[in-house]
Amino acid sequence: MPQVAVMSPNGEVEKIDRDSQAGLEALRALSALLLKAALHQQFDGIRLGAAVAEDDQFYVDSDKDEQQVSADELASLEATIKQFAKDDVKVEFAQVKVEDALAEVKDDPFSTELINEHAQDGLVAMYEVAGVKSVATQPVLVYGNVVKNYQLLSVAGAYWKGMSSNPMLQRIYGTVFFKKDNLEADLKARQEARERDHRVIGNQLDLFFVDPKVGAGLPYWMPKGATIRRVIERYIIDKEVADDYEHVYTPVLMNLDAYKTSGHWDHYREDMFPPMDMGDGELLELRPMNCPSHIQVYKHHIRSYRDLPLRIAELGMMHRYEKSGALSGLQRVREMTLNDGHTFVTLDQIQDEFAKILKLIMDVYKDFDITDYTFRLSYRDPKNTEKYFANDEMWEQAQNMLKGAMDDLGLDYYEAEGEAAFYGPKLDIQTKTALGNEETMSTIQLDFMLPEKFDLHYVGEDGQQHRPVMIHRGVVGTMERFMAYLTEIYKGAFPTWLAPQQVNIIPVSDDRHGEYADQVAKELKHLNIRAKVDHRNEKMGYKIRESQTQKVPYTLVVGDDEMANGAVSVRKYGEQEQNGMSKDDFLKLIQADIASYSREN
Amino acid sequence: MPQVAVMSPNGEVEKIDRDSQAGLEALRALSALLLKAALHQQFDGIRLGAAVAEDDQFYVDSDKDEQQVSADELASLEATIKQFAKDDVKVEFAQVKVEDALAEVKDDPFSTELINEHAQDGLVAMYEVAGVKSVATQPVLVYGNVVKNYQLLSVAGAYWKGMSSNPMLQRIYGTVFFKKDNLEADLKARQEARERDHRVIGNQLDLFFVDPKVGAGLPYWMPKGATIRRVIERYIIDKEVADDYEHVYTPVLMNLDAYKTSGHWDHYREDMFPPMDMGDGELLELRPMNCPSHIQVYKHHIRSYRDLPLRIAELGMMHRYEKSGALSGLQRVREMTLNDGHTFVTLDQIQDEFAKILKLIMDVYKDFDITDYTFRLSYRDPKNTEKYFANDEMWEQAQNMLKGAMDDLGLDYYEAEGEAAFYGPKLDIQTKTALGNEETMSTIQLDFMLPEKFDLHYVGEDGQQHRPVMIHRGVVGTMERFMAYLTEIYKGAFPTWLAPQQVNIIPVSDDRHGEYADQVAKELKHLNIRAKVDHRNEKMGYKIRESQTQKVPYTLVVGDDEMANGAVSVRKYGEQEQNGMSKDDFLKLIQADIASYSREN
Repeated sequence: MPQVAVMSPNGEVEKIDRDSQAGLEALRALSALLLKAALHQQFDGIRLGAAVAEDDQFYVDSDKDEQQVSADELASLEATIKQFAKDDVKVEFAQVKVEDALAEVKDDPFSTELINEHAQDGLVAMYEVAGVKSVATQPVLVYGNVVKNYQLLSVAGAYWKGMSSNPMLQRIYGTVFFKKDNLEADLKARQEARERDHRVIGNQLDLFFVDPKVGAGLPYWMPKGATIRRVIERYIIDKEVADDYEHVYTPVLMNLDAYKTSGHWDHYREDMFPPMDMGDGELLELRPMNCPSHIQVYKHHIRSYRDLPLRIAELGMMHRYEKSGALSGLQRVREMTLNDGHTFVTLDQIQDEFAKILKLIMDVYKDFDITDYTFRLSYRDPKNTEKYFANDEMWEQAQNMLKGAMDDLGLDYYEAEGEAAFYGPKLDIQTKTALGNEETMSTIQLDFMLPEKFDLHYVGEDGQQHRPVMIHRGVVGTMERFMAYLTEIYKGAFPTWLAPQQVNIIPVSDDRHGEYADQVAKELKHLNIRAKVDHRNEKMGYKIRESQTQKVPYTLVVGDDEMANGAVSVRKYGEQEQNGMSKDDFLKLIQADIASYSREN
Repeated sequence: MPQVAVMSPNGEVEKIDRDSQAGLEALRALSALLLKAALHQQFDGIRLGAAVAEDDQFYVDSDKDEQQVSADELASLEATIKQFAKDDVKVEFAQVKVEDALAEVKDDPFSTELINEHAQDGLVAMYEVAGVKSVATQPVLVYGNVVKNYQLLSVAGAYWKGMSSNPMLQRIYGTVFFKKDNLEADLKARQEARERDHRVIGNQLDLFFVDPKVGAGLPYWMPKGATIRRVIERYIIDKEVADDYEHVYTPVLMNLDAYKTSGHWDHYREDMFPPMDMGDGELLELRPMNCPSHIQVYKHHIRSYRDLPLRIAELGMMHRYEKSGALSGLQRVREMTLNDGHTFVTLDQIQDEFAKILKLIMDVYKDFDITDYTFRLSYRDPKNTEKYFANDEMWEQAQNMLKGAMDDLGLDYYEAEGEAAFYGPKLDIQTKTALGNEETMSTIQLDFMLPEKFDLHYVGEDGQQHRPVMIHRGVVGTMERFMAYLTEIYKGAFPTWLAPQQVNIIPVSDDRHGEYADQVAKELKHLNIRAKVDHRNEKMGYKIRESQTQKVPYTLVVGDDEMANGAVSVRKYGEQEQNGMSKDDFLKLIQADIASYSREN
């Protein structure tokens, strides 16, 4: 196995396997140093920050006066790195006196800070390559000639050390491998991820936008995105109402006292928006979750055992304070609408209710064609029971019920001790985003604590007051995150029932066939099918291509033949055109398609 | 015509017609003084505030230690007033030295304040009746024996002088007339208004509640109210989408800068919620209106004349700060969702667009059976044009277009010069609430100003940039106010298409007919009809009565005969029962009813 020389931040050099993870990381670290040297060489007076190997890439932070490095300049930086490699540059190590190191970078506040941070006993360990010194923080390859298969990927703004109170720097990302094959596979995977990225697709299809100038993390749903969201919202509400949920609307604001009672203000404050002083001694808070609101609905009447299970659901808007650096498209936002629900049950009803909720979730997944998920049952840590809400019997019974329900349903799951919320055990359903991040799509959480904190009761068959258990559940999560997820799994080609425009009708000649096209559109609209006619004065080929770019499920072309026969030529997205289908057949086809949701027929 | 003696606050007495408005007001003022004297006589140490004749009633403010006056005590206060009248009490007038007047009421901060407020040259004009002195503020009848036909109506909390920073007082209301007939008619009208009062019905039918402890003016829509709202929301969105609106979702929060640009922060600040400091220099504001949000949607793309009219609509949640004393049920709230829309047009398109919007509004009114409304066209004041946005030509043209459109449509309207908004002329459609208050249900407002302030453009046919005109329009107003209005006009008996529960099925014997009832319910639900079976162990008569109390449009009773014949016995709300209707006939009946909206078939 080929070996490579790797230098540690203490200056020691050893040989390791080239194809090990450590070997690849040292290659990335070296590439970062070469990129830094290239920046230093090409741009006079540029201030240079960290050069880092991270995850599956490397990056260098920098800051220039006037214009920052542009994406166009990446190629010439790559050329400079190539020249370094050709020149067989080599990493040298030195313990430098702090004052000497600082003197060398005196106009560069970032390097100054890094040196001060890593100084020990008046010395700082540094790597030098191609005439540029950097603080030694990671193991690095010694010989520059191996840096051959690399590509600089992008430039993006990033806060110095990731803190938004620091100045914004320019971060240049790159990827590198020992072998050309690996680089090519990596670039292909990155391209695919980019093509699925909901931010990219959202922009291409004009589904939504976020403008930090009018509000960071506050998305605007444009007409097409809003149409998809509306279809989803109606679908999920109808599904839940049919499943015995009572849908409500509750205010997005609540007296802060409720969040003090719930414990959110004590434990969750940094994720909450600042309270508003309304005068009259009232402090109002934008709610970070809907549970206290649904508890108000529960408490509005005296409840009897006959009322349980009581299922309160809402598309509940919430606000959570995320750091501006963490915000991303519809994935991470500050204002979100959760497909939320809370069921109030007796202890005996937990298992049946759990199974009922899970069945609902599975039904919904089927309709959206969500197939890639895993179940995680989260229990309390049996060795640290004091960390959890104190009621051993409840925990035992509840955990057994959840497990029993999963077994009864014959579902595969893994058990995670110590992963429960402190208020109760839960089931999380984990999915993966196109970019490879795992996220929780659905959740079913038992809660013994809030009923206690808000002093909830029901009158039992015995005429006595009892404490209900609360089940928090989300089926599709927030509208924002679900939309991001669907955009990525469908790559923007939304199934017909969700597509903002379901049918695009293109007259061969607008003069001769435009009226017939309008008539077809009218018939479709009458059946609640979202159809439009493209009357623009453009070439037919152009219109058909645009229809594909916009990923419209059905493109109909109508000309003389179609008009004469009451027919349409049908091109389904990504398929071949079918000529001369009768209008009725097409109506049957598309109605069956819509009724089948996302599933293959 | 009978005459009565009336004393003015300056002590002069004159005779006026008893049956004049002034006579009735003086009777109310006297009754207030007698009520005040009765309170003084019955409750030791009570502090007494203003005694006032107002609108169609009179009231006295008071404050007691420990328990306040209860509704049960009104009868004994009435008896005391009766005794005063029998005793022929009489109002005396005196100019009292301020120090003497103050000495007499020294433990009563309210009377003290009133005296200080009305003192002039060291003296204060006072009425004295039944041993109690009050500051003279209104004309009052002199002879107490005319106070015969009166009734105390209610006790309610009210802030001293209506300001929420003042202490809360007890306000006792009463009504009084010279003639018994008039009193009876008045009480009947009050009873009817109470029966229509959406707050009363909302409580009886469990439609919504507001709890100032968790948030003043922040309504919770309970499942039944939420169902009605959902039907309305879907109806109006579908109607608007079919009418070429693009529905969007935009954030309820926006950078405060946008409201500085729009002018809201300068002119409307006291109706806005306090801004939230998010760090990073961002001040976020809960939006008081949706216009700036829809402007963001407009600005997100370069717009061409081909895109206009561009119609952006949303069920947009907004927050407005109303004083807590002004809040009332769903009528006046702090969080509301407006059926909002903004059309961006060229100057030439105003008239057609106005007519299109008006047609939409009239269609919607028809479906909700709204018939009692008037049109008001509001122009700028021709004598004070400098008060308005400056563009004479635009005003002239726009006003003529509105008038032209109204005339073309053959609609009756009245013109109100000087009633325009300062940014453009408008049409308001005024309706009346059950309680007699006029309110604006729908509005169409031209706006020349915001396009200017936000620098909006479109590219004209000439390739040049032009300024669009913005039309603000609301069809059914806010969901909250519209729901209050509908509850009152329908007296809670919502037409079938809106009713939260459309069908109530009562098995004669749950054992024998319960299953058949479930089967009927299932068939109905399958057709998206909201049906429930009353399986409770209660008498049939009780169940039928409750079905009526809950104003369910259709009550079905099923027993042996119905089961044998696949039939149902149908009782439509407020009508007689029809026995043995076949299930199919009933399905046809109710489906036709739903499809007809609110209109009589």
